[in-house]
Amino acid sequence: MNTIYERAALVADAAQRMGKHVYSPGTAGKITEARLEFQKKSPKLATLEEAIRRSGLTDGMTISFHHHFRGGDKVVNMVVDKLAQMGFRNLHLAASSLSDVHSPLIGHIRNGVISRISTSGLRGELAQCISHGLMDEPVVFRSHGGRGSAIASGDLHIDVAFLGTSSSDPLGNACGYSRSPNARSICGSLGYALPDARYADKVVVITDDLVPYPNTPNSISEHDVDFVVEVDSVGDSSKIASGAIRDTKNPRDILLAQQAARVIENSGYFNDGFSIQTGSGGASLAAVKFLRESMIEKGIKASFALGGITAHMVRMHQEGLIDRLIDVQSFDKVAAESLMTDRSHKEVSSCEYASADEPGSAVHYLDVVILSALEADVNFNVNVLVGSDGIIRGAIGGHPDTAADSALSVIVCPLLRGRIPCIVDEVTTLITPGSTVDVIVTEYGIAVNPARPDLAARLREKGMNVVGIEWLRDKARSIIGRAAPLPFGNKVVGVVMNRDGSVMDVIKNIEPADD
Amino acid sequence: MNTIYERAALVADAAQRMGKHVYSPGTAGKITEARLEFQKKSPKLATLEEAIRRSGLTDGMTISFHHHFRGGDKVVNMVVDKLAQMGFRNLHLAASSLSDVHSPLIGHIRNGVISRISTSGLRGELAQCISHGLMDEPVVFRSHGGRGSAIASGDLHIDVAFLGTSSSDPLGNACGYSRSPNARSICGSLGYALPDARYADKVVVITDDLVPYPNTPNSISEHDVDFVVEVDSVGDSSKIASGAIRDTKNPRDILLAQQAARVIENSGYFNDGFSIQTGSGGASLAAVKFLRESMIEKGIKASFALGGITAHMVRMHQEGLIDRLIDVQSFDKVAAESLMTDRSHKEVSSCEYASADEPGSAVHYLDVVILSALEADVNFNVNVLVGSDGIIRGAIGGHPDTAADSALSVIVCPLLRGRIPCIVDEVTTLITPGSTVDVIVTEYGIAVNPARPDLAARLREKGMNVVGIEWLRDKARSIIGRAAPLPFGNKVVGVVMNRDGSVMDVIKNIEPADD
Repeated sequence: MNTIYERAALVADAAQRMGKHVYSPGTAGKITEARLEFQKKSPKLATLEEAIRRSGLTDGMTISFHHHFRGGDKVVNMVVDKLAQMGFRNLHLAASSLSDVHSPLIGHIRNGVISRISTSGLRGELAQCISHGLMDEPVVFRSHGGRGSAIASGDLHIDVAFLGTSSSDPLGNACGYSRSPNARSICGSLGYALPDARYADKVVVITDDLVPYPNTPNSISEHDVDFVVEVDSVGDSSKIASGAIRDTKNPRDILLAQQAARVIENSGYFNDGFSIQTGSGGASLAAVKFLRESMIEKGIKASFALGGITAHMVRMHQEGLIDRLIDVQSFDKVAAESLMTDRSHKEVSSCEYASADEPGSAVHYLDVVILSALEADVNFNVNVLVGSDGIIRGAIGGHPDTAADSALSVIVCPLLRGRIPCIVDEVTTLITPGSTVDVIVTEYGIAVNPARPDLAARLREKGMNVVGIEWLRDKARSIIGRAAPLPFGNKVVGVVMNRDGSVMDVIKNIEPADD
Repeated sequence: MNTIYERAALVADAAQRMGKHVYSPGTAGKITEARLEFQKKSPKLATLEEAIRRSGLTDGMTISFHHHFRGGDKVVNMVVDKLAQMGFRNLHLAASSLSDVHSPLIGHIRNGVISRISTSGLRGELAQCISHGLMDEPVVFRSHGGRGSAIASGDLHIDVAFLGTSSSDPLGNACGYSRSPNARSICGSLGYALPDARYADKVVVITDDLVPYPNTPNSISEHDVDFVVEVDSVGDSSKIASGAIRDTKNPRDILLAQQAARVIENSGYFNDGFSIQTGSGGASLAAVKFLRESMIEKGIKASFALGGITAHMVRMHQEGLIDRLIDVQSFDKVAAESLMTDRSHKEVSSCEYASADEPGSAVHYLDVVILSALEADVNFNVNVLVGSDGIIRGAIGGHPDTAADSALSVIVCPLLRGRIPCIVDEVTTLITPGSTVDVIVTEYGIAVNPARPDLAARLREKGMNVVGIEWLRDKARSIIGRAAPLPFGNKVVGVVMNRDGSVMDVIKNIEPADD
């Protein structure tokens, strides 16, 4: 008597009704030899070329990258060089940001390997060439929250993501740091890479420290990873804190930082349990140091610091001044190491950080943000992307996301940078709409958005030098005079998306300066 | 001069080419009042009834639940009662498992509120009624890994997930524990709920401790959560360790545990860096205690313990005997608390734990698993779901997942339970195919799968009592005699899926015993 055979007809019937196969031991049994083979070499391990080939990438598809190594990134150039060598053409490169280290992309654009770019920012020679009209298709610029939203909604569909990590096991459990003695790099949070890991069709993890399974706790999960590629180096960690991030010694920046701290202290939002984020500019980073003193003095503690986590914030967290750190990007090595070891230092994706589509993203609970600017205008609009010479030289970052959703957005911006006025009639490029900017702090006075009379009154009450934004513009003009119009051409080289997915501005090509 | 107006035509043109709207400040500007309102009350906060209504649930849809509170669960009954009250009908209830506390579902099945069930197991009165033919549609049984795969592949599509959590902030960052002084419950890992959170169309987090934002580090992310419902209690934590989990004092179980430990020690897999999982049976849990002694004696350490994490494993981890804990389900309160506080105690989803579709799931790296059985047969097939009386009284759990992917699967099973033979000609229901079972340990001897002569030789070499599986069957038969055939009817009340998504067996209805 064999009841299974007796039940075979019923099993077949059930399978047919459910549209399934009938189980066969041959297809799912235990194969000890294969298992040992598997454990010796994970089926996900591949060379970069194999991973690309097996990913199914074809001409015209979208590839993605993160920028957590900032100026130290080695993955973009490595992968695009390989793609060029393999003969791919017409690819769309969707990076969370690009910097001056990525100038080799110029050649790949000229050769037709890369025909479209989406990014938060551009710097250096690549930015210059693009500003002069290198590409046929305009670069699409998104904020960090906007990119997260666009990926989650399918608006920005990624075919293959190439994600550099500082450790991974052979199955793809990966981190922006490594606990092994062979660690070669560290970048901390992989926040900008997490939407790519989750939503890309294929995910290639590239690592310079292949560690034994299980690499837990992990940031990227094996659930999302298709291939693991071991390389010599994914990035130069010493350059994480380069680019926009620096500890300022500039006396004007220190003055601006002090003023920004005083604005916050007197704003009505400096209360026990407040939350704070600082942008990557020198003055905005320095403001935290001044706030720290006031917090100690007044016995005020922050519920969380968001963003861009820095060594200063880690110290304040360790001192008990900041309860939780919410980290989409580690701004320096101290922050990256804290993320590895401190459980209340939490890594978040760019969606969890700043998506406009998600009521739960952290920016919605942000009280205060301190941000820098290349230019601000009399309508409180801010530009952080295009220089006053018309050349792209920055990144949107989380600027418009945090300005829009915070209770108090403070922009620190010198009135002048050398012979360049920074408070102008109209920003060269609209990045953060004036309707989301509350205060602009300059070395000549503090302008408060007319939509916030409550705030202006509170600052005046405390004796702060509140001035009109037009007065600041006039002051700059009186020192420097009117700037000549920029020699823009008629080609659109960049499109600036608002975080809600609408088109906010375009960037036109600019004629190269005569040398 | 307003360059933005000058660029307006280009902006409109870019938007049209991209299929986007042009940005309007009115739609995305900063609205301070609304923001304050939002911070006072998250838009996700709702009563259970509101959450259900706003979820878009309609008759015939699939709702899901996790079973991390085991016999202490209060969420399934609470939600289904509410759904019944609201007039819903014909719903498909897809739980990770169900237990004797869920007998109120009997009424909801009779009334047509629930017409289909998918689960890993059934116990108590509900199981009995279903075994007797309560439902028109057969219950679909899946293993934990099989359920994860089915959800990730879309095979099991969840319309609305109702996930009980021990803490959540108003935006849905939620955990199976709470760090607040108001904590009312704890279940530890939410591993079985994570695929639901990720893949369900709508996710309702139900919590008995609504904590301030940010509830980090979190298990379920706000990114996945649509509604947050605060209730008095989601579960009775004292019952986590009830049901199948208990620390055995049964001398036969202790003997079986000792033998299982000796099998492992002599198997060739007991080497430094080995990995281990134990099932929820008393003997299999107890085996770890014996292994611990050998590990200390021989200086062997485990790389990770998987699964079902217990207080014993936490202790061994703290002692340095187990490097990492990988936790899909916390089997007791000590394990749940360890998950909350210990960073190398890692929570994983059922996909990361045991999906057959994922080469990276943890079971692929599992060396040794110790599992229990209701019955095993001469082909090494194992049944953990249906009693020898034909009544459903168990759960598939991770049994077939871990047996298939481990290097060594050890089944502990007494030859007899009272007057019931446990080594039989053929299992009542096929749950774990014999091709994936390596060793069966009974109190009368150890049977090794003929496919593993290497293993039998090693055990014999060490003087272990290796016997034929038929000898064990005959021994049982000689003591008890042949069992009478079970009075099965012709209605299919359950379908057992293999973890690969094929249909493996069916369960027929059984006539109620005469009282």
